[in-house]
Formats: sequence, structure tokens, C-alpha cells
Amino acid sequence: MSVPSADSAPLRFRRWEQRTEVPLFGASLLFLLGYAVRVLAPEDAEPWRDLALALVGATWLVFAADYAVRIRLSGLGHRFVRVHWLDTVVLLLPLLRPLRLIRVYTAVQKRRERPRLSLYARVISYAGATALLLGFSAALAVYHQERGAPDATIRTFGDALWWASATLTTVGYGDAVPVTAGGRVVATGLMACGLGLLGAVTGSFSSWLLQVFTREDEKRPPEGG
Amino acid sequence: MSVPSADSAPLRFRRWEQRTEVPLFGASLLFLLGYAVRVLAPEDAEPWRDLALALVGATWLVFAADYAVRIRLSGLGHRFVRVHWLDTVVLLLPLLRPLRLIRVYTAVQKRRERPRLSLYARVISYAGATALLLGFSAALAVYHQERGAPDATIRTFGDALWWASATLTTVGYGDAVPVTAGGRVVATGLMACGLGLLGAVTGSFSSWLLQVFTREDEKRPPEGG
Amino acid sequence: MSVPSADSAPLRFRRWEQRTEVPLFGASLLFLLGYAVRVLAPEDAEPWRDLALALVGATWLVFAADYAVRIRLSGLGHRFVRVHWLDTVVLLLPLLRPLRLIRVYTAVQKRRERPRLSLYARVISYAGATALLLGFSAALAVYHQERGAPDATIRTFGDALWWASATLTTVGYGDAVPVTAGGRVVATGLMACGLGLLGAVTGSFSSWLLQVFTREDEKRPPEGG
Amino acid sequence: MSVPSADSAPLRFRRWEQRTEVPLFGASLLFLLGYAVRVLAPEDAEPWRDLALALVGATWLVFAADYAVRIRLSGLGHRFVRVHWLDTVVLLLPLLRPLRLIRVYTAVQKRRERPRLSLYARVISYAGATALLLGFSAALAVYHQERGAPDATIRTFGDALWWASATLTTVGYGDAVPVTAGGRVVATGLMACGLGLLGAVTGSFSSWLLQVFTREDEKRPPEGG
Repeated sequence: MSVPSADSAPLRFRRWEQRTEVPLFGASLLFLLGYAVRVLAPEDAEPWRDLALALVGATWLVFAADYAVRIRLSGLGHRFVRVHWLDTVVLLLPLLRPLRLIRVYTAVQKRRERPRLSLYARVISYAGATALLLGFSAALAVYHQERGAPDATIRTFGDALWWASATLTTVGYGDAVPVTAGGRVVATGLMACGLGLLGAVTGSFSSWLLQVFTREDEKRPPEGG
Repeated sequence: MSVPSADSAPLRFRRWEQRTEVPLFGASLLFLLGYAVRVLAPEDAEPWRDLALALVGATWLVFAADYAVRIRLSGLGHRFVRVHWLDTVVLLLPLLRPLRLIRVYTAVQKRRERPRLSLYARVISYAGATALLLGFSAALAVYHQERGAPDATIRTFGDALWWASATLTTVGYGDAVPVTAGGRVVATGLMACGLGLLGAVTGSFSSWLLQVFTREDEKRPPEGG
Repeated sequence: MSVPSADSAPLRFRRWEQRTEVPLFGASLLFLLGYAVRVLAPEDAEPWRDLALALVGATWLVFAADYAVRIRLSGLGHRFVRVHWLDTVVLLLPLLRPLRLIRVYTAVQKRRERPRLSLYARVISYAGATALLLGFSAALAVYHQERGAPDATIRTFGDALWWASATLTTVGYGDAVPVTAGGRVVATGLMACGLGLLGAVTGSFSSWLLQVFTREDEKRPPEGG
Repeated sequence: MSVPSADSAPLRFRRWEQRTEVPLFGASLLFLLGYAVRVLAPEDAEPWRDLALALVGATWLVFAADYAVRIRLSGLGHRFVRVHWLDTVVLLLPLLRPLRLIRVYTAVQKRRERPRLSLYARVISYAGATALLLGFSAALAVYHQERGAPDATIRTFGDALWWASATLTTVGYGDAVPVTAGGRVVATGLMACGLGLLGAVTGSFSSWLLQVFTREDEKRPPEGG
């Protein structure tokens, strides 16, 4: 459930991770930007579309280089692919890359010695940021797939955003749904994430409540439920 | 997750909050009433519609004045906007104003020294009241947006209420859905609230159950799951 | 959240409740049967339909008489309506009556001194039984409302059952939805119950898991998450 | 909630279960494969379809034989049907058979003395594997039922998979839904499983969070929520 901690990794590996954190996060935002421009720019805006494609390719190369360096430094050899499976998945599906935001945020928080927010508030804000990034990326990817389909119900990027929010919250109206195989694969991934998100929100609320109750229970004498 | 407590705020600020609580709650009910009349009154009921608009404007001015006074008294200056971000959001989206009900209810409960309901019953009743107010406000706002749309599936206020209940419970039939951009923005907000609501209900049930179990466990000797 | 316990009620009140439990449960099953026959019998099966109506009326009178006797015996006077609000609701909406099943089951379990099932299994089986009864009752009520509607999508009782299961699980396909005001009111109630049911299932799973984990944690030495 | 443990069962019964575990798991994969070929093979691939049917029948006979042997060895007689109700259900609905995977996985884990994954990661991976198997089996069964229906919206096996993922996550778009009675019965079962799955994910997240919080709470001095 958690990313394998780097505690047992060689020192050089950890130092590499620390140093590349912020640049790689910048690269993932550039990747998302490039993909967004590529998908959303009008057909005839040729130079912009080409620039965006170049940006997507270049940032992906940066990720691949980082992945290669980390295999080297980790000293794990081919086992790296399995141990750091999350990184492997992210290399293949770079749209998940911006989720790195959360690690950066955690790292920034840690440097401040003491997090400003309670655990529950942090889970809620992580879930919110994840939902926004995932929803936006999925909307881009689905719009990319569906644009050309003749009987598509997702016809504008606005429709794609609307579909993504209805999917992530598991509401699922069904007025705008992917009809292509590619779009449906993206959608299935988003649904699974929506389920996890729901679990995170529900779970954090549940444990917060339980903790509040325990405290209240300790303060006053018991008196029956 | 919780509204910043007023414990560290100056005494005058806290006194202002206490005194204005009930009048401001009345003002927010008037605001909701005015908006409801404005949206639901027939087109030709001119004087009523104008009166409703005036009511909406007047109560909004009251909120703005209260906000200004509180900035002054808090002594926080422009940081007030960030610290009391919930108040800022409510100033911009006054339809969320009636949620103040919950603070009033909590305040009334506190004056009675000891709340009549257990924590779980309170969470459930807060969630219920929030759901009713949010659903009603969202139905009004969506009906307001959708009324004029040519291909709307939400054609009466009854449809809007039906849509709101299907959305808040994350059922999402899709027989009545907003088609305008404005309506979809409102809907996305309502979906997020529905997710939170689900979390509240699930969470409170979960912790209640856990507490019941712990008590039962203490009463009788352990005997395996 | 729980039915007000009868601990503080007069002895005669408690004895009445104990004695009438099984007969009243029988009466509520007869009520459900009568309603089901009334709704599902073909239009021309006149004698059966009349008999069913008489059965519904007679069992309702039994509930009303029980309610009156309990007001008397409780010694609460008009406060009874508020204290035993659940009974009041059930008197007005007798289709909720079969939920009494759960109380009977609990009572039968208590007589056996020690329940056969763990708390979590009991919550799951209560939730299951409640879901079946609620779904069946709601399907009957919605079919009753929708049957005559010209543009209904719920046209057979099978459609109504299908709609009820999609609603209770918050899936909400939207291929069969109530279109009449009456049907939508019933549906809103069922959605709220679905939310609660989801909360019960999720909550009980959550606390069961937490308990299993705590036990496992105690057995073996701690070793990090 | 848990499968009745074999601790009190005779030694021969337990030995039988241990020895047949892996062969029976192989048989259930063959069953699923046979059913998949039977459903998905084109109409004119006669020899393959007949082979698949024979495979389904043969593996089912293996399950029936195992069931009979276990009744014998358990020494429970006709009570076996009730005590091992899960096995009875699986005998009648052999598509649930591959869920045995989870038992095999647990058994393999146990032999390693100490599970490699934490409880939460195990719950998540069980839930994931269950979701995949259930979704695939339900998609097969529904496609089997719907294929011949004239007004079906599930027309290809891809549609059936898409429907299954929207159902299991309780999103429920409604663009592809079963219209036959048989398909709807399968769908209702899948919905109930989706609800349980949601409960498992939410619950495990909730308890994981609560545990993390408790640990953090112990490390640092309390400072208010």
C-alpha cells in the first residue's frame, strides 16, 4: 500500500531521489501540459501541436533516464522492476506522473519538521488533489480516444470533465460515456481510483470520528450509548 | 477539517460572533427564501420576483458587512481571508450559507451543557440536515441554470429535486441531468458533497459498531471471532 | 440511533411488548402479503383483490390498536409520539413494518442466552434481511405508482425489482426509473436506505478488519506496517 | 463471515482438503476456461464448443465428487450442507469456484510461515483478485444470457466487461445493461458483491488510517485534533 521505503537503499540512491524530486515534478507538470496542449489544441494549430508532442517525448525521456539511473544506483538489478513496481507503472503510464505531487508535498511538509495539518486533513487534501489530477488526466485521455468516434457521447472536453467527475464520485449518470475500447480502458482505471478515493474519504472520516468519540468518552463519565 | 477555533481570537471578535449568530442564521434563511421565490415564481409575478431579488441583495449585503466587521475585529488583516477560508467561500457562494444551521444547532446544544444525543446520532442528524439543505439549494441553483436550455432533461423543479437526491446518494440514474456548463459546475459540487456525506454516514456507523463491539467484548469472556 | 430502550418503561408496557411481538410480526407479514396481492393480482381477479384490501385494512387496524394500547401503558401521554418516533413512522408507513423482523430475530437470539453469530455476522445478516424486505416493499410501492403512467420505464414487477436492486446498491443504471411524483418519493426513501445499508456493510467490514488486525498485532511482535 | 474452520473436523477430512486444494483449483480454472470458450467461441466452431461443454461437465463432476467425499469424511451427514453452506453454494454456482484462488493463496502464504504482505495490503489484493474473477465470470454469464435478446444493449463480450466494471464499482452508467431476466439475476448478484467490495476497500483503508494515526499519536505529544 505504501511506496517501498528507501531506508534499506544505498545512500547514493536516496541522495539521487532527494535531488531529482523537484526537477522531476516540474517535468511531470510539463508532460501534463504538453499532453493537454496536444489533445486540446485545434487541428490547424500545427506548430503548437508539434511543440507539445516534442515536450511530451522529451519529458518522457527524462523519466526513462531517471528510471535507468535509479535501477543502477539501487543495486537491485532486474528486481528493481518488481520492488519499485509503482515507478514501473508510472513509467508506462506517464499520465499518472503528476501524482508525484503528493510525494513532493509530503517531502516539503517533512522539512518543516511538524506538519501543519492533522492526519485526517492531510488524507482529505491528498484525496482531493489526487482526484483533481486524476480526473483531469483521465478526461484528457478519454477525450483523446473518443474525439474521432462517430457515435461518441463525449464530444467536447467539457463533456469529458463532466464524465470524469461523475465517474470519480461513483455517481455515473451515463449521459456521457466512452464508447471506444481505449476510452473504456481509461474509464475502468478511473472507476477503480474512484472506489479507492471513496474508501479514503470514508475511511478517514470514520477514523476521525472514532478518535473524537474516544476522546469525548474519556473526558466525561460513561452514561450509555 | 474543522473551522478554525476562535480561542486565540480577541474577545471582541468572539463576542461579535456570539451575538450575530442567530440574526445571521435568520438572514441566511431569508436569503434562501428569496432565492427560492426568485427561481420558482412564475415569470409574470413581477412584484414578487422583484421583492425576492431585493431580499437576496439585502441579505447578501448583511453577510458582506458581517464579513467586513469580522476582518476588523479579528485583527488578522488580509490573513483573515485565508484563515477563515470557509467564511470567504460562503460569502462568494451564499447558497452554502444555510449550512450555518449546524453551527447554530451546535451552539444551542452547548448551552444546554450536555448534548441530548450521542455523538453518532448527532453526526447522522447533521448529515441529514446538511443533505436536505444542500440538496434543496443545489436543486434551486441547477433549475435556475437549466430552465432555459433547449435540450434540458431537468424541466421542472420536481425534476431538479429528483436529480439532487439521486446525486447526493451517488445513485445517479441519469434520467435527469444538467446539460449547461453552469448546471454541471453546481452538480460537481453536489457530487463531492455526496461523497463526503456517504463518508460521514459510513464512518459514523463504522465507529458506532466498533464501540458497541468493544463494550460487548468487555462484558463477556473472549471466545474467538 | 437505537430504539429507545424499554428499561425505564413500566412493567406492564414491557410485558405487552413481549407478548405482542410474535403476533404483530405475523400481522406485518400478512400486511405485506395483502399489499403484494393487491398490487400484483390481475385487474379482473376481483374477489382476490378485495380480500387483499380487507387484509391490508384489518392488519393496519391491528397496528393502530397496538399503538393506542402502548401509548396507554407507557404512561408517556402525547410524548409517546416523539419518544417512540420510530413506531409512529411505522404506523404511518406500514410497509416498513416487516422490518420488525429484526427485532423479533434479536429477541429470539437473546432467549438462547448467547447469540450464535458474531456481531459482524449479525450486522451483515440484518443488513441483508433489511435490504431484501425494503427492496421488495419499495418495488411493490413503486410498481403500484408507476403502473398507470404513460411514459413509465418500470412496466412489470420484474422491472420494479430490478430497479430496486440497482437503487439499494447505489449502482443506479437509470434504464428503469420512476417517472411519477409518488414513485420518486418512494425512490428517494429507498436511496437514503441504500446509503445507510452501504454504511452498515462498509462499517461492519471496517471494524471487523480493525479487530482482526488488533488481535494479530497482539500475537506477534510489532514489525512496521 | 469466515469459512467454518476445520479445526474441529476429523483428521482425515483435513488431510483430504489439504491434498485436493491445488488439483481442485486447477479444475476450477479449467471450468472457467471451458465456460469462457463455450460462451465466446463462434457458433460454427462446433468441435471446440463441444470440447468446452465436455470440459465444463467433467470439472463439475469433479466438484460434485469432492463434495460427496467431504460429506463422508466430515462425519456431519446432512448437516454438512448447512455448516459448509459456502461449499454448497459454490457447487450450485460453479462460476464462483475460481474464488477458491483466495484460499489457495492464503494456504501458500501460511506455508511461508510469515506472510510477506501486511494485513491491509492482503485485503486490498484479495479484493482486487476477487473483483477481477467475479467481474470476468459475471461478464461471461451475462453475455451468455443477453446474446440472443433482441433489444440487448450488451452486444459484444467487450460490452459485457465494460458493464461488469461499471457495476462492480457501483458507478452504473446504464449505457449497457442486461435486459433479460437471467442477466438481471446475475447482475443483482454482482451488485451485491460490488457493495461488499466497496466495504472491503473502504474498511481496510479506514482501519489502516486509524492504525497509522494511533502510532503517530504515540510518537509525539498530544496537541489537539
